[in-house]
Amino acid sequence: MKTSITRRVTFSAGHRLYNSAFDDAKNRRIFGDCANPNGHGHNYILEVTVTGEIDPETGMVINLKDMKRIITEQVIAKVDHKNLNLDVDFMQGVIPTTENVAHQIWEILDRAFGEGLLENIVLHESENNRVKITR
Amino acid sequence: MKTSITRRVTFSAGHRLYNSAFDDAKNRRIFGDCANPNGHGHNYILEVTVTGEIDPETGMVINLKDMKRIITEQVIAKVDHKNLNLDVDFMQGVIPTTENVAHQIWEILDRAFGEGLLENIVLHESENNRVKITR
Amino acid sequence: MKTSITRRVTFSAGHRLYNSAFDDAKNRRIFGDCANPNGHGHNYILEVTVTGEIDPETGMVINLKDMKRIITEQVIAKVDHKNLNLDVDFMQGVIPTTENVAHQIWEILDRAFGEGLLENIVLHESENNRVKITR
Amino acid sequence: MKTSITRRVTFSAGHRLYNSAFDDAKNRRIFGDCANPNGHGHNYILEVTVTGEIDPETGMVINLKDMKRIITEQVIAKVDHKNLNLDVDFMQGVIPTTENVAHQIWEILDRAFGEGLLENIVLHESENNRVKITR
Amino acid sequence: MKTSITRRVTFSAGHRLYNSAFDDAKNRRIFGDCANPNGHGHNYILEVTVTGEIDPETGMVINLKDMKRIITEQVIAKVDHKNLNLDVDFMQGVIPTTENVAHQIWEILDRAFGEGLLENIVLHESENNRVKITR
Amino acid sequence: MKTSITRRVTFSAGHRLYNSAFDDAKNRRIFGDCANPNGHGHNYILEVTVTGEIDPETGMVINLKDMKRIITEQVIAKVDHKNLNLDVDFMQGVIPTTENVAHQIWEILDRAFGEGLLENIVLHESENNRVKITR
Repeated sequence: MKTSITRRVTFSAGHRLYNSAFDDAKNRRIFGDCANPNGHGHNYILEVTVTGEIDPETGMVINLKDMKRIITEQVIAKVDHKNLNLDVDFMQGVIPTTENVAHQIWEILDRAFGEGLLENIVLHESENNRVKITR
Repeated sequence: MKTSITRRVTFSAGHRLYNSAFDDAKNRRIFGDCANPNGHGHNYILEVTVTGEIDPETGMVINLKDMKRIITEQVIAKVDHKNLNLDVDFMQGVIPTTENVAHQIWEILDRAFGEGLLENIVLHESENNRVKITR
Repeated sequence: MKTSITRRVTFSAGHRLYNSAFDDAKNRRIFGDCANPNGHGHNYILEVTVTGEIDPETGMVINLKDMKRIITEQVIAKVDHKNLNLDVDFMQGVIPTTENVAHQIWEILDRAFGEGLLENIVLHESENNRVKITR
Repeated sequence: MKTSITRRVTFSAGHRLYNSAFDDAKNRRIFGDCANPNGHGHNYILEVTVTGEIDPETGMVINLKDMKRIITEQVIAKVDHKNLNLDVDFMQGVIPTTENVAHQIWEILDRAFGEGLLENIVLHESENNRVKITR
Repeated sequence: MKTSITRRVTFSAGHRLYNSAFDDAKNRRIFGDCANPNGHGHNYILEVTVTGEIDPETGMVINLKDMKRIITEQVIAKVDHKNLNLDVDFMQGVIPTTENVAHQIWEILDRAFGEGLLENIVLHESENNRVKITR
Repeated sequence: MKTSITRRVTFSAGHRLYNSAFDDAKNRRIFGDCANPNGHGHNYILEVTVTGEIDPETGMVINLKDMKRIITEQVIAKVDHKNLNLDVDFMQGVIPTTENVAHQIWEILDRAFGEGLLENIVLHESENNRVKITR
């Protein structure tokens, strides 16, 4: 039996999808409206799941207060109300598709939680699209 | 008794809140993180409500296909995957707060539906904030 | 100041939209895919709102148990897991658009609650379409 | 045309419904399971709607930061993770039905916002039950 | 680490649950209200999840436009606003329980995506019932 | 290929988080507002997932009516509109964190369904926090 706990947070960010190695026509063909030069944005939902044993003294796998603090400091403070292409250090040189944003967030949170605690993250870009990273 | 029908649509857009008549400090004080120079964005939800008599031949106040076509052509095509400050003709010179975006959309849809059909619109900027315009 | 209380219930039903006075082409033109001869269906959500004074002895406008019983007996028992065109007495001779279904439900609930208690009902046909009847 | 802006917040609280003037049987008959002596609880959702003119300098009816601060200080700080019967000053001597909780919150917020700004509040006790207070 | 991307789509369809090898009483006992001869229907939600490597040139596991096109052409066009028992080729001779509909959709999408890309699909029949097929 | 079916149910309950082996300050430090002596409460959502083969005669992994009956009798009847600390036999001596409540529910349902049918359960304490138990 495995126990995991999930914390859901939200952030709003802008982005533009394009590859500078492609010309405009190819960017438009691959990224569609997401290649719009002035960008657009989303209300992202991030779900972070940690797995572990339940501490019998607290009844917790991890204290949600700690979980919330780590996610806020390491991720939300850097992306909320920001432009993912221009304002976010960990997105420099990376096309901000949902897949890539999720991967960068995984790397940050996996280091921050340590000890292989992080089991998966899910990043929703809209009510119809989401990406999951699983260890 | 009054009958109204509501169509819900979504669009994703970027924006930045600032007033060029304010200095940076005042923009930051009033608009907070929303004044970030490189902008951010949202998944907006737009709910459009029309009121009228039910046509006994069709059982409809208005054909949803017509309602959808009008909203798509007049609003969604102009704002979806766009930057509200830079790309949208009807937002030029207007601070893109939810209130102002909703007002501009009301003006467009009120003209498009005509005859006082439009009863209200609701524009959700996030799961926690929304604006309603009522005739 | 006005106080209203809303109860949300769900039901699943089948229907087909067509007017027997129209030929097939006109039915298809007006009702689109909803005219499919073998029908289709929806998970409907019905929200019923009653307005009144708060009884100081109970702290209630109306007891939710009574509200639930009335809605279940008068509406849900007749439409849930039914075909609105063929199985439902109060829909005979009525095109089962969301507008018309809502109107018939309004008439039933207005009689059942009595004394002008019913303020409005909202019937959702899908996450994108809904109809509201207001006194 | 009327413009209103809505802020949605959540809180979790415990409560028990009973009237000390009733005997146990009557409390159970009227309040059902909600009369359980040790109480139970809910994740409440509170939606607060303010109406006004849009300030042309800010594009806002009211600054959402101010709206959030008032709601948090005046309501959420007093009810979140509390027992509505035992811990909340403004609920003393009041049966904590959704109607009554909503009325008390209305009184507090109407004073706090002032000038008739408050248009309505909606308090959701569960996904199926909610109460609306309208000026 | 594994990356998966999910696309959510909706369709509305009618169905009736019964096994022609059973008599009416047995159909009613097993399928309950779902055995109603004239059928009923649902707003189905289909979530399709594909797993793979992120293409460094596009930042994508698969282009969502392709994913959407495949799901629309192969599934939605065949079931939306249809009667699952009578109108859908791939449901002939199959009782349209959520399990069976999901299995048929899995077979179609697994062939369409190819190369073992499809990881799972989830089919929601209502807000309370859903089925998941996992490779 | 694996097929699983999920049933979603809800219940409302009160609780207080504290460990009687800790003093008040430590309880407050670890459990925060959840240590409030008079408790608070939540609308819990419980999702129960069962895995198995589809019976070709019924098209079902398990009859949802049986699934609903087991969950209602074994869990919901014991926790809905109850205080988890004081009223629930299977929570005696257990700190009612979401992790612990989920574990106790898992033990009950695993015995009730038998034969290793239960695959996982998810218990949501709020829209932002949930726990999953997987076999």
